[in-house]
Amino acid sequence: MPVAMTPLASGERKQGTVCIFGTGDFGRSLGLRLLQAGYEVVFGSRDPKNSPLVPKGSKVMIHTEAAQTAQVIFIAVQRDHYEFLTSLTPALEGKVLVDISNNLKRGQFPQSNAEYLSSLVPGASVVKGFNTVSAWALQSGALDASRQVLLCGDDPQAKQAVVDIAHSLGLTTQDRGSLRAAGEVEDIPLQLFPNWRLPLWIATGLVAFFFFYLLIRDVIYAYVEKKQDISYRITVTLANKVFPIVALVMLSLCYLPGALAAILQLHWGTKYRRFPDWLDRWMLCRKQLGLLALFFAVLHVLYTFVTAIRYNVMHTRDTEVIAQITENKAVPFDSAEAWASDAFLSLGVLGLVTFLLLGLTSLPSVSGTLNWREFRFIQSKLGYLTLTICTAHCLLYGWDKFLKPSTYKWFTPPGFMLCLVVPCVVLVLKLALSVPCVDNRIIRIRNGWERPTKRRSGGKVVTMEKGTTL
Amino acid sequence: MPVAMTPLASGERKQGTVCIFGTGDFGRSLGLRLLQAGYEVVFGSRDPKNSPLVPKGSKVMIHTEAAQTAQVIFIAVQRDHYEFLTSLTPALEGKVLVDISNNLKRGQFPQSNAEYLSSLVPGASVVKGFNTVSAWALQSGALDASRQVLLCGDDPQAKQAVVDIAHSLGLTTQDRGSLRAAGEVEDIPLQLFPNWRLPLWIATGLVAFFFFYLLIRDVIYAYVEKKQDISYRITVTLANKVFPIVALVMLSLCYLPGALAAILQLHWGTKYRRFPDWLDRWMLCRKQLGLLALFFAVLHVLYTFVTAIRYNVMHTRDTEVIAQITENKAVPFDSAEAWASDAFLSLGVLGLVTFLLLGLTSLPSVSGTLNWREFRFIQSKLGYLTLTICTAHCLLYGWDKFLKPSTYKWFTPPGFMLCLVVPCVVLVLKLALSVPCVDNRIIRIRNGWERPTKRRSGGKVVTMEKGTTL
Amino acid sequence: MPVAMTPLASGERKQGTVCIFGTGDFGRSLGLRLLQAGYEVVFGSRDPKNSPLVPKGSKVMIHTEAAQTAQVIFIAVQRDHYEFLTSLTPALEGKVLVDISNNLKRGQFPQSNAEYLSSLVPGASVVKGFNTVSAWALQSGALDASRQVLLCGDDPQAKQAVVDIAHSLGLTTQDRGSLRAAGEVEDIPLQLFPNWRLPLWIATGLVAFFFFYLLIRDVIYAYVEKKQDISYRITVTLANKVFPIVALVMLSLCYLPGALAAILQLHWGTKYRRFPDWLDRWMLCRKQLGLLALFFAVLHVLYTFVTAIRYNVMHTRDTEVIAQITENKAVPFDSAEAWASDAFLSLGVLGLVTFLLLGLTSLPSVSGTLNWREFRFIQSKLGYLTLTICTAHCLLYGWDKFLKPSTYKWFTPPGFMLCLVVPCVVLVLKLALSVPCVDNRIIRIRNGWERPTKRRSGGKVVTMEKGTTL
Repeated sequence: MPVAMTPLASGERKQGTVCIFGTGDFGRSLGLRLLQAGYEVVFGSRDPKNSPLVPKGSKVMIHTEAAQTAQVIFIAVQRDHYEFLTSLTPALEGKVLVDISNNLKRGQFPQSNAEYLSSLVPGASVVKGFNTVSAWALQSGALDASRQVLLCGDDPQAKQAVVDIAHSLGLTTQDRGSLRAAGEVEDIPLQLFPNWRLPLWIATGLVAFFFFYLLIRDVIYAYVEKKQDISYRITVTLANKVFPIVALVMLSLCYLPGALAAILQLHWGTKYRRFPDWLDRWMLCRKQLGLLALFFAVLHVLYTFVTAIRYNVMHTRDTEVIAQITENKAVPFDSAEAWASDAFLSLGVLGLVTFLLLGLTSLPSVSGTLNWREFRFIQSKLGYLTLTICTAHCLLYGWDKFLKPSTYKWFTPPGFMLCLVVPCVVLVLKLALSVPCVDNRIIRIRNGWERPTKRRSGGKVVTMEKGTTL
Repeated sequence: MPVAMTPLASGERKQGTVCIFGTGDFGRSLGLRLLQAGYEVVFGSRDPKNSPLVPKGSKVMIHTEAAQTAQVIFIAVQRDHYEFLTSLTPALEGKVLVDISNNLKRGQFPQSNAEYLSSLVPGASVVKGFNTVSAWALQSGALDASRQVLLCGDDPQAKQAVVDIAHSLGLTTQDRGSLRAAGEVEDIPLQLFPNWRLPLWIATGLVAFFFFYLLIRDVIYAYVEKKQDISYRITVTLANKVFPIVALVMLSLCYLPGALAAILQLHWGTKYRRFPDWLDRWMLCRKQLGLLALFFAVLHVLYTFVTAIRYNVMHTRDTEVIAQITENKAVPFDSAEAWASDAFLSLGVLGLVTFLLLGLTSLPSVSGTLNWREFRFIQSKLGYLTLTICTAHCLLYGWDKFLKPSTYKWFTPPGFMLCLVVPCVVLVLKLALSVPCVDNRIIRIRNGWERPTKRRSGGKVVTMEKGTTL
Repeated sequence: MPVAMTPLASGERKQGTVCIFGTGDFGRSLGLRLLQAGYEVVFGSRDPKNSPLVPKGSKVMIHTEAAQTAQVIFIAVQRDHYEFLTSLTPALEGKVLVDISNNLKRGQFPQSNAEYLSSLVPGASVVKGFNTVSAWALQSGALDASRQVLLCGDDPQAKQAVVDIAHSLGLTTQDRGSLRAAGEVEDIPLQLFPNWRLPLWIATGLVAFFFFYLLIRDVIYAYVEKKQDISYRITVTLANKVFPIVALVMLSLCYLPGALAAILQLHWGTKYRRFPDWLDRWMLCRKQLGLLALFFAVLHVLYTFVTAIRYNVMHTRDTEVIAQITENKAVPFDSAEAWASDAFLSLGVLGLVTFLLLGLTSLPSVSGTLNWREFRFIQSKLGYLTLTICTAHCLLYGWDKFLKPSTYKWFTPPGFMLCLVVPCVVLVLKLALSVPCVDNRIIRIRNGWERPTKRRSGGKVVTMEKGTTL
């Protein structure tokens, strides 16, 4: 909802005064927002007479004068120009300086901007914050962009003053500790999908591998062995083989680490041991793996839906019908084929629908309405159901192809067989882990139970207390 | 966004000290988060020397010593082991104990965990809270899981201390009143989709009924009367008859209670009377009914999209073409049939699209951006539009079948006729309620107007004041 | 999650007392919620003995008595009946009155309700708020509807008292300044999609234009020139031409203003000049333009997916097959046609998928998890990718039609050619703006650089300082 634009008579402002150094986009947006929330706003500028765009109702003064009007000063100036602040040191003594700056890339400077500012003006209390909020979000009052202000600073009172301002602007705050954390807070707006990198590499690798594998088996094989040019199949036919394969493999990769973790915990007999790093990283990107799998599944579905209106599919069918007539032998109806075809398609549809439900509950706003038990129910039960249905869908695709020698062109298995390996392994592991005696052991371990070991401390088995904690 | 991991030098912590009893998953995650927010964290443990996994920067002491370091103590221990706290009573005198425990099932104990804790340590102020937040959500700083902390407790100051901690961790809080509400707060994470139960039962019942009804009419009828085995139709053909029927019935069930409520209010002449319980419960699950209807509608659409690539559909069409040629009589183009077919499909597409829009605005984050008027506009106007389009889609499906005797196999009406009953009733009711004079009366009643009755109190008709309140 | 219903023993309430005038829906829901949060609640009523529906645990008194019990009084009465408050002036002296009222339409009264209330009871501090929260949302504790309370008022302490109450109910607050902003806060719940109006008009205009244009070129042309009645094509064939055209035009309209803005900034040599009003308004509705474009794209896709099961499509194909046989000349396989058909469909699928991703990241909860850099990456890079793919999809549709004279019925170009104009212009502009030397200039301008001008102030070029601000 748009922000109120009513100008306030100056007598009505009772929230106190806030000073902003710099009249750029962010400074002006912030000033406008502060005015609307009832603050007096004073801009600090080198050239107060030439600042035409500052919001109505605010004042513009030279820096030293501006600094004296307020306790909290937002430094809306780029780091490169911080040095002019050293000349203002006396005026800034005891003030709260809010460093809102961002850099262009990570690790651009050895010292964070806020710490640099603090070293320039040691008499002031520097608070890092607001850098994750955009000028646009401030101005439009948008809920779209993140409304969370991350703050850090060494002086609790200074921090509290900034928290109060953020709250009265309708923003939420999160305390990130001392000024030493400023570097991390400054890095946040520079990240570009850090959690998606590994999954995207895996997806790219899988797509590339299966694309070339199937290109060789289908197009090149036909060209070499049968002198046929079926290269037109690359755009849809081949894509529609690669995408479902990658989707199924990635979906199973999503559930494999959980099974491995359970096996490790069973083996160790405790949950109080760290998983190897690669497993930890793998577990942390399960959501992204799953969403990418859904992406490829949707591509597969869309390619399938246009099958019937593709030129070569229509031509092939016409040719078959014409052949049946000219050779005068109608193909009889094959009830088993009808069953298999319909069951195959039906499993595909059900797999897609359960997969979409999984994806839907990954939306932050949906998962936010679920409690922990519901979230786990969906992600685990519904997840394995999806994997089972999709694996069955794939198995049914090849139901009569497994034993035909013609399937194994150049002695290589077709793509769908390769892609069944991981899902089948995951499902077998899950089945093994679901055997009651194994399952109970895992539940006990996850509730804190430990297999008694010889390790004792002070003559008392440590197991006891571990079992008592949450 | 991931949580900052910068270790802080101990001199920088100025937020105060928090004590945590127990070094399990939740205790450790909470400790890590508190450290990051600038708190000193002291773990209480029976065996301080053997707690290898506590986060860096925190201290571990035996319980009595740990208790003395802080005013607020989180009890991250399972209820079964609360009894050891009785031995610490002197050390816990006057402290704030935060009970964060959860049970395994609802009503596991007659007394809530927090009240039990309070009875064990009467000298301390117990606050229930944080049990709805998961260790994982704390650790990952995720927005995914709910960030709302529900609190209850008898001592306002104790509660406020916990509220402050929650806020500085970036969580929101909701006061749930006194410690007597602890049982309810403890039940929340144990709920498994309570609002979905009734709608799911209705959906299951409808699916089962129509499945068997159509199985008998289609497959069994063909087997008995014509000796044909068309059982292969169960997987797709039959499913694609059952799903749209259930979708339409459930969509109309979504709007029926609103119409009934309006009729009741008209009949009573007031809105100041409670609806019968069954109607209240029905009205509360309208959203779920609608979303399940959308689920079945999507299934129907997906099954429809694969129609053209099903083996038996392709075989039937080929057979027809071959028959046309061998019998040498081409079927002439039927313009009415073309109109009906295209209009039928077009209504289906439009119905799906409006239905999807309805579903989209049910997403918490989307409905959160709508004001009350917009939300009602969408849910009511768009909802009835969807119902009208889908009913028309269904009517057009049967346009030339209503009068054919062959439609009524074994004297039963086909499924689509049965399913039209409820939507048509709802639409007729809605039409009747939209007649201006009726509609105005409803609006006046909903704005607080009451039909003058003989009931008077103190000689003054009560109607007056009722009409004045919001 | 449902709100706790545990009644509290009266001795446990320690939050203080709140008074509510009026026992309507909102008053009662608010009262219930306050009771649950531990407040004492006293309802003010003209007829305390006849208020049967007030929540258990609250008291009902006549207004003057009720007013004395609490410092904060919610006025849950309609504006029409505010006048009775003048008789209570002495009792309301120094109290905080919360005006929660809404009007039925915008600008219904010259003065906002809250200011009117303030003029009636000058001795009290009026705070406007809670009018954007619905009774239903309060009662159900729903996260669905907006939980943000917008407040305005002239007295900071009064405002703070209301903020505290809102927070303890689990709501967030946003300060909207002095009571003069009350009119705007009162207008918010009366808005009906204000940002969607312009885009919806554009969409309606485009649909109407292309519908009639294509109706004339297709249906009427066939009727006039060939005496054929192909009016059955209106429902699907024509719709499926209009929708993709409108989708592509609107998608490009979404990116055109950004390009125009860049050109203006290049021309001006500064970003410190306001864009013309029409451009500003256009830029503010880009999101809505894009979402409407996605809506039409989805319609196009759904219509395409049912192509193969449409009666007239099936009949046409059957007729062709029969013709091939009776004339005994099979149409040979055209490899170029197969490539074009598959590439066309493939681009359509890819365009849809990238478009859906764009739409997904427009969901408030998804965009809320992105930082500014990620959001811009998605909206700009992915947006132009989508536009490029969709334009290529459209170009490929007409690949062999551009040079055929038969394409230009009645000397008019077909719809898809018309619709290519805007996207091609946008893509060419984007390409021109991406040339490194131009791009660098834009980046410098957006970072605050200004082309040196003759305008000087006090002998110093202003450029310097501008470049330093954020």
